[in-house]
Amino acid sequence: MLVQKYIDMLGAKSVIRDLAGKAAERGKEIGYENVFDYSLGNPSVPAPDAYNESLVRMIGTLDSRSLHGYSPNPGLPEVRDAVAASLAKRFGIPYKREHIFMTSAAASALAHAFRLVTEPGDEILTFAPYFPEYGPYVNLTGAVLKVVPADTETFQINFTQFESMLNEKTMAVLINTPNNPSGVVYSEDTVRRLSDILRDAQKKYSHPIYIISDEPYREIVFDGKAAPCISAFYDNTIMCYSFSKSLSLPGDRIGYMAVNPAAEGADLMVNMAVQISRGIGHNCPTALMQRAVAENIDLTADLSVYETNMNLIYDKLVDLGFTVVRPGGTFYIFPKALEADSVAFAQKALKYDLVLVPGDSFGAPGFFRMAYCIDTEKVVRSLPVLEKFVKEEYGAG
Amino acid sequence: MLVQKYIDMLGAKSVIRDLAGKAAERGKEIGYENVFDYSLGNPSVPAPDAYNESLVRMIGTLDSRSLHGYSPNPGLPEVRDAVAASLAKRFGIPYKREHIFMTSAAASALAHAFRLVTEPGDEILTFAPYFPEYGPYVNLTGAVLKVVPADTETFQINFTQFESMLNEKTMAVLINTPNNPSGVVYSEDTVRRLSDILRDAQKKYSHPIYIISDEPYREIVFDGKAAPCISAFYDNTIMCYSFSKSLSLPGDRIGYMAVNPAAEGADLMVNMAVQISRGIGHNCPTALMQRAVAENIDLTADLSVYETNMNLIYDKLVDLGFTVVRPGGTFYIFPKALEADSVAFAQKALKYDLVLVPGDSFGAPGFFRMAYCIDTEKVVRSLPVLEKFVKEEYGAG
Repeated sequence: MLVQKYIDMLGAKSVIRDLAGKAAERGKEIGYENVFDYSLGNPSVPAPDAYNESLVRMIGTLDSRSLHGYSPNPGLPEVRDAVAASLAKRFGIPYKREHIFMTSAAASALAHAFRLVTEPGDEILTFAPYFPEYGPYVNLTGAVLKVVPADTETFQINFTQFESMLNEKTMAVLINTPNNPSGVVYSEDTVRRLSDILRDAQKKYSHPIYIISDEPYREIVFDGKAAPCISAFYDNTIMCYSFSKSLSLPGDRIGYMAVNPAAEGADLMVNMAVQISRGIGHNCPTALMQRAVAENIDLTADLSVYETNMNLIYDKLVDLGFTVVRPGGTFYIFPKALEADSVAFAQKALKYDLVLVPGDSFGAPGFFRMAYCIDTEKVVRSLPVLEKFVKEEYGAG
Repeated sequence: MLVQKYIDMLGAKSVIRDLAGKAAERGKEIGYENVFDYSLGNPSVPAPDAYNESLVRMIGTLDSRSLHGYSPNPGLPEVRDAVAASLAKRFGIPYKREHIFMTSAAASALAHAFRLVTEPGDEILTFAPYFPEYGPYVNLTGAVLKVVPADTETFQINFTQFESMLNEKTMAVLINTPNNPSGVVYSEDTVRRLSDILRDAQKKYSHPIYIISDEPYREIVFDGKAAPCISAFYDNTIMCYSFSKSLSLPGDRIGYMAVNPAAEGADLMVNMAVQISRGIGHNCPTALMQRAVAENIDLTADLSVYETNMNLIYDKLVDLGFTVVRPGGTFYIFPKALEADSVAFAQKALKYDLVLVPGDSFGAPGFFRMAYCIDTEKVVRSLPVLEKFVKEEYGAG
């Protein structure tokens, strides 16, 4: 019989996709260039030419078996070497091939990481605001996702709440910094305090508690800074990375899981992931894309537009009287709505062809997300519209 | 804590990979061209030029967002349309976009199909000889794979055993025709009888029983024939397809699941697969590969070499006195070993640099598999070696 739990999920609509659909519909009426669509986290800058050149050169020069042949389950050895070497050089952590497992972007890396360290009924804690897909990603494994309420002043970690929720069933903590949707980068203080608490909890509960660090926005950090590397602070860290945002190629489905060499069981985990993959239908990402990212391992797309957009939007929001934490990275910003009901707020914005996503989906009602991975020219045109919306609907600004 | 069941799996070695490893090692000593490596089912013919030309043209002409942007979870709409239209035209079954779910080759299609129709504890029946990965593929979902012993005379279906094993917990039957490892194509009679039995069982147990049809070898059929299309015989069929073998691109990880439009729940199943995919970390295959297979949907690599190789090997085996069913397709042949212990048989063959895989892994001890996806020139050179092995070790031939 068809499995009911998946049928039951069909009713639930994604607010983000629903809004993106509305934006597309409206675009057909008035031209999409006139819809200020801040709904989707889809990279707007092109992939680097060098990446495309790698693809074309390999297609033209490799023999068919090298080009299109099977990759070993954990990834091509030379690609895993390239990833490990890049991480080792950059973060000063001795990653080797055996710690790297190539995946179909971050979703696949997370699917393996969850299964490595949780049995059904175990708990994974994450922190609001959070990427809504974490719910099904975790809960469909049989583990349970518990969400620590947000520190809405800073969108760092609400440690009081966190410590009250940590318990013997907590097997992993799932973090996402730079963060979707807040744009906040966890400070070194935050990461250090999180690590200290987890080390204590490991002792108290006599089992490892892993940090599963979802890092697709690692390369999009503003003001010339870098995001603290979680593995450098906490041994039991499983890094989940995607090239989707850094190289602007979400459709290419390429990323990796990197196990901290100092983690408990680091020598086993990639081989365990190979076993996990047999059950979930992963047989490694496309070999061609593996080779192409390896050739361009330290490259990114021109990500500067996101900082430009952020500054334009942030300054305008502040100007209009919004309460908003300045993003340290990503292409998201997460201001407080001008009424408690952020769904109603976003509904009103739609009348102005401003597509904003209510914070409810992210575990932070009362806020809204703007994904500013759009052309700067459009951001500039949207600002007077934002002002008009705020003044007309709320008499503010 | 690291999950024990995956650690427990680390001990088990794949006989096939172990043999392939030995072949590679021996190749370093005497030159790989002198190792008659019949271990791996890795396509030996090149992918069609047209496929590579599609890739290069798209990379050169599509804008970055079209080329590298997100594909919707079930696949690009135009690609699903192309797959549906090709299947509809070819098999006379009214497949539409909504029945097609693009996957990272057949392993991913199977991972979704199993989860669509089984809860933990449910049973899936398959028929020996069978692809050994079916064990972990099914059992790691929580369902249980039960193997119907082989009809070793024909490698069609052992219906007596099958009927005795069918029970109320049977939710699906997993078939693979053309078959790895036997090379046998199920006859229309076999498929008709299988369908009749399942229709009766559905009535008896008052629930649907799906055929999950794993069809990666569908295009490799000999003597100018075609393999019977399972969906044309049985409504509740979920087809799992891969382009890995037909287009010689296993590293590209591209295939699909096609739900028979007449299946119970056909209107739900692709959307259910989207939900399933959130839990197992699939977010659709690489967009570029989706587009490239759609552009070449009715094309295959030059597969004729497999038939040439099969005939050479089959004739020689018969000549040497082997009991062997003549393959109707694939690039495998599955003769009876010359002693009851096919592991010992394969060990002896290794001394002659003949790499044969014992049938034990495939649920058919006493037989051995030869994967003849290798150059014909090498097949020709291997035949006197095979004869020498047989004569020296068994005084036969």
